[in-house]
Amino acid sequence: MHKFYGIGVGPGDPELLTVKAAKKLSELDVLVVPQSKSGGTSEAHQIASPYLTPKTTILYRHFPMTTDTEAMMAAIEPIALEIEALVNEGKDVGFVTLGDPMIYSTYIYLLKFIKDAVPIETMTGISSYSAIASGTNQPLVEGDMPLLIYPCIEDLSDLDQKLQDYEALVLMKVYRSFDAIKALILKHGLENYCVIVSDFGKPGEKRFNSIQSVSFEDIRYFTTIIINKRWSK
Amino acid sequence: MHKFYGIGVGPGDPELLTVKAAKKLSELDVLVVPQSKSGGTSEAHQIASPYLTPKTTILYRHFPMTTDTEAMMAAIEPIALEIEALVNEGKDVGFVTLGDPMIYSTYIYLLKFIKDAVPIETMTGISSYSAIASGTNQPLVEGDMPLLIYPCIEDLSDLDQKLQDYEALVLMKVYRSFDAIKALILKHGLENYCVIVSDFGKPGEKRFNSIQSVSFEDIRYFTTIIINKRWSK
Repeated sequence: MHKFYGIGVGPGDPELLTVKAAKKLSELDVLVVPQSKSGGTSEAHQIASPYLTPKTTILYRHFPMTTDTEAMMAAIEPIALEIEALVNEGKDVGFVTLGDPMIYSTYIYLLKFIKDAVPIETMTGISSYSAIASGTNQPLVEGDMPLLIYPCIEDLSDLDQKLQDYEALVLMKVYRSFDAIKALILKHGLENYCVIVSDFGKPGEKRFNSIQSVSFEDIRYFTTIIINKRWSK
Repeated sequence: MHKFYGIGVGPGDPELLTVKAAKKLSELDVLVVPQSKSGGTSEAHQIASPYLTPKTTILYRHFPMTTDTEAMMAAIEPIALEIEALVNEGKDVGFVTLGDPMIYSTYIYLLKFIKDAVPIETMTGISSYSAIASGTNQPLVEGDMPLLIYPCIEDLSDLDQKLQDYEALVLMKVYRSFDAIKALILKHGLENYCVIVSDFGKPGEKRFNSIQSVSFEDIRYFTTIIINKRWSK
């Protein structure tokens, strides 16, 4: 039975793919690679490339980087139809996506279209926050604590309360509002209970030991903060 | 440089180990395997076994299954000292742990003791909830939604509010209070927005399509519920 495979490639290091995903990449007939700019490079493709073989046809397709869901869906629909047609022709078709395919990924929008059209197998991947926690030996959560994964996209009005209510948090996409987030972390006395990493696992990776000395100019677009009130440095 | 390696083996399928963890397992001098009962089997060991070679000495050590942190720490301290001694003797020593080593694992307690004593490398693994989400094609979280990972251990008094406040939740350890949790999910009208899986990836795996028809007798000890208000079945 031919399928569409949504493949999580993890946060950056090709060795963080699962054994299963690495194997499947080597067997595909077609791999659809998302590009944010036409003709641009694809990070997910680079991570997957050690496992690809000449038998796989690569199709580059444009996925807009946008928070406008309608624009995203309009761009994705023809790609979804193309994938369905390829599977129906008897091809095994893959799609590579960064991190865990079920957490904040473009793949989820693709899945909405393809859902019941052809058989789908999603192959799990390592999320960036899990990789950062292990990579810095910083536990995310223990015992009976809940863990809050919190994307700092626009409205930060409830972050103050979240930092009060939860012992374990992952703050994602902290780039745009970094100064406000830093001020809140200091206000809650969490400077010794957090880890900040930019571009984890990439050539320009930056880890910061103390949030006090970090400013907006120091961090990069992909920056994550892990907070665990039961784990001091 | 010799190290202590904390290795996440994922939720059950040996192919869900990362390529990096699989490789490291084949290179270790010593592997410490946690047993909850003396002489009992170890699930983490079984998952790792396809990658182990005869060069690795296996040490079975008893880790109590308890929520009593003091009893846990007392049992773990001599094991931590033994691991430190082995690394200082020039051995690469591994420890296998289910799922993601930084999420609700016994490894975190071991890390507390060993922290600054010898070099440590934690090798990330797939969490059970990530594997379940991909395995059921059920997205965890998209867009600007936070994701709440919530262990249903004892006090469920705030779960009603959490189900109100969050659009995306993972309810872990739902076994003991299943009837109360089910009633809350139905109260919030979430029956078409959740997935329930027992023993994911194991021989006795059970997936339930509708929470209405599931009772306490149907589920097993390891049961997880994924809720996503933006993803109906």
